[in-house]
Amino acid sequence: MAGVLTREQILEAAEETLRRFGPAKTTVVDVARTLGVSHGTVYRHFPSKAALRDAVAEEWLARVSAPLEAIVASGGPALGRLHDWVATLSATKRGLAAEDPELFETYVTLAVQSREVVDRHVDELVAQLTAIVAAGVDAGELAAADPAATARAIFDATSRFHNPVHAGEWADAGLADAFEAVWSLLIDGLRPRRG
Amino acid sequence: MAGVLTREQILEAAEETLRRFGPAKTTVVDVARTLGVSHGTVYRHFPSKAALRDAVAEEWLARVSAPLEAIVASGGPALGRLHDWVATLSATKRGLAAEDPELFETYVTLAVQSREVVDRHVDELVAQLTAIVAAGVDAGELAAADPAATARAIFDATSRFHNPVHAGEWADAGLADAFEAVWSLLIDGLRPRRG
Repeated sequence: MAGVLTREQILEAAEETLRRFGPAKTTVVDVARTLGVSHGTVYRHFPSKAALRDAVAEEWLARVSAPLEAIVASGGPALGRLHDWVATLSATKRGLAAEDPELFETYVTLAVQSREVVDRHVDELVAQLTAIVAAGVDAGELAAADPAATARAIFDATSRFHNPVHAGEWADAGLADAFEAVWSLLIDGLRPRRG
Repeated sequence: MAGVLTREQILEAAEETLRRFGPAKTTVVDVARTLGVSHGTVYRHFPSKAALRDAVAEEWLARVSAPLEAIVASGGPALGRLHDWVATLSATKRGLAAEDPELFETYVTLAVQSREVVDRHVDELVAQLTAIVAAGVDAGELAAADPAATARAIFDATSRFHNPVHAGEWADAGLADAFEAVWSLLIDGLRPRRG
């Protein structure tokens, strides 16, 4: 391979190799072979197989969080942004699962092994939600004594619609209605509103 | 084996056989051998391997729904009963998973194969929840335009705490707090309550 090998080229080759061999069988040597370089060259960028795996998982998860960041930055009423944020998270995950179920499964397996990367990803997502909740509280639009706790509760209460462990249910006909029903409950709660 | 073979004895033997061989390798012949009878005797009670599998799944799921029925029947304020119902569902599932993780995994695999049995089970659970929600609406304690839809939304929003696909997270230290945070959100909602 001509020129200097970039981190991005290695990650692309890793994705290609993963797609071909699956996460259990992919080795750094396979990735190097795909690039036509020695494994030493790959190790200069990623000191271990675990480091390469974490980087691949991180890049995949960044595809999920990037469009959400735009919703946080967009401003506007908090309730609408919260709905769009969760709906977009759900649609992105479902899109990835439907587009290439095998690669999705591969990335999920990879992510499960990169526990710290996933924890950081979830913390980042909950921080995005927290920013919207806090803005809504400041505007008098939302009630939340602890915006971070409320953000985490919104994330947990909508797990069925974005957590890959539920991917097997994402083709269900009633999914969109089920999401809106959960969303209404999260907005209005169970107790009656007086006045 | 002396005397008349009962349905319960076959189901007990099926559980024992499943525990030993796992769901993929358990056959009706194995179950019959455990009982010391011919497989024809087992077939007189369960016409197919699928029928036996469904019956085993049904019995397991009945262990989950029985203590919940008592909460529905107990009467009293609806919000408290709803909390206890979901908390009990969560505790029962977590208890089964912690007590014997391998058998839990076996039953989950079995249940996934008995799709109709699981759907009936979920419908039964949502019907229990609906009864509590409807009673709460009648008493002016809860607001829900469509108690069945609200019940399903409560069930979906608390998936993380009772759906076996989340069993891997059930030992997390923060689980009880996470549940209470979701519960508070479900009670009060995101929109401010004006006095």
